Amino acid sequence: MRYAVLGTGIVGRTIAAKLASLGHEVVVGTRDPQSTLARTHPDSMGNPPFSTWHADHPGVALETFAEAAAFGEAVVNTTAGVAALDALQAAGGANLAGKVLIDVANPLDFSAGMPPILNPVNTDSLGEQIQRAFPGAKVVKTLNTMNCFVMVDPGRVAGAHNVFVSGADSGAKKQVTELLVSFGWSEQNVIDLGGIDTARGTEMLLPIWLRLMGTLGHADFNFHIQGAR
Amino acid sequence: MRYAVLGTGIVGRTIAAKLASLGHEVVVGTRDPQSTLARTHPDSMGNPPFSTWHADHPGVALETFAEAAAFGEAVVNTTAGVAALDALQAAGGANLAGKVLIDVANPLDFSAGMPPILNPVNTDSLGEQIQRAFPGAKVVKTLNTMNCFVMVDPGRVAGAHNVFVSGADSGAKKQVTELLVSFGWSEQNVIDLGGIDTARGTEMLLPIWLRLMGTLGHADFNFHIQGAR
Repeated sequence: MRYAVLGTGIVGRTIAAKLASLGHEVVVGTRDPQSTLARTHPDSMGNPPFSTWHADHPGVALETFAEAAAFGEAVVNTTAGVAALDALQAAGGANLAGKVLIDVANPLDFSAGMPPILNPVNTDSLGEQIQRAFPGAKVVKTLNTMNCFVMVDPGRVAGAHNVFVSGADSGAKKQVTELLVSFGWSEQNVIDLGGIDTARGTEMLLPIWLRLMGTLGHADFNFHIQGAR
Repeated sequence: MRYAVLGTGIVGRTIAAKLASLGHEVVVGTRDPQSTLARTHPDSMGNPPFSTWHADHPGVALETFAEAAAFGEAVVNTTAGVAALDALQAAGGANLAGKVLIDVANPLDFSAGMPPILNPVNTDSLGEQIQRAFPGAKVVKTLNTMNCFVMVDPGRVAGAHNVFVSGADSGAKKQVTELLVSFGWSEQNVIDLGGIDTARGTEMLLPIWLRLMGTLGHADFNFHIQGAR
């Protein structure tokens, strides 16, 4: 299948590489491909520049948001949460219409320093904002409650643990669940929370997730709903 | 030990009964004991009136917030989140000073209907509000991330699952952890998140908790941080 992965950060790279390893055709989308490829320094989190990753993944093309979204039969949003709506506007509603739009982003706002706050929060969510802005897309919020390495390799965390899906379209959630299974998730560990408004619940896991990462000193953990079945 | 349990709802009753069963002296605090005892109808959640519970627990006294807090060597806040600061003001800062104040409440605001929102949220928490309002109390936020029957009987949920503690005073957290162990919690399943500001993280678990209860159709579940150790 053809996937567009919007965003060139560590989350986008990790998901793009996993999709390509599974035999999918993958185009990564960015605002300005030339500018993205011209960066030679690690990002603020210490990740190597995109060009380094790209050299190791020559089968994955880098194009504009719009070109990538036009290419993809499904689109994965891995952009920074505060930039997601702008990135998706650049991708273009027509290029998203009718497609499954997998939203992995969290609306983390670092403008007031650490720890980040959520914006929006509580009475809205990024998942809902995206669905409202692109009513023709079938938005499924998922994978946003864990480190990206766990997203594509759940076996990194020993024992059972969960991934949540939120969205209005049950066919889209079924398709996303099949993708999650291909990533290594057991279908019984996928919890369908209901509509896209339930993204409020999963996005609001980030504050404790960030504090747990600080307490535990690593990111190889995940939420398990004990007693769910 | 002498415990004050502030609040006469199902959470307060469940914790008061557990404490009494463990041999502690327990006084439940309410705004107006006569009024609380005079109620003869179930509450809005269908729980029987307090008097019914009280008849089954004659060893637990019902007094005013202030009388209960004065009696307790430690105080447990189980009042409704939106009423908690008022209830604690009625209890009186002098009756809380120097004591461990276990805050089990969540700031769930039902004023805009269901599902409730959190107020405060994100940039503040009820735990922090209480600590600021009563700087002499040693506030420990805990147990607020699960159903009250699980709080006092963690074995209701099969397998390992976690309870969080947040607070500035490590001695108070140690004392609360010992109480949790007496409730049936394994010490290794108690996760110390750090200061009281980390209550933001645990309070923000409520939105997904409420949606999980809806999805699962029961409340006998709990969060387990898989990979924490």
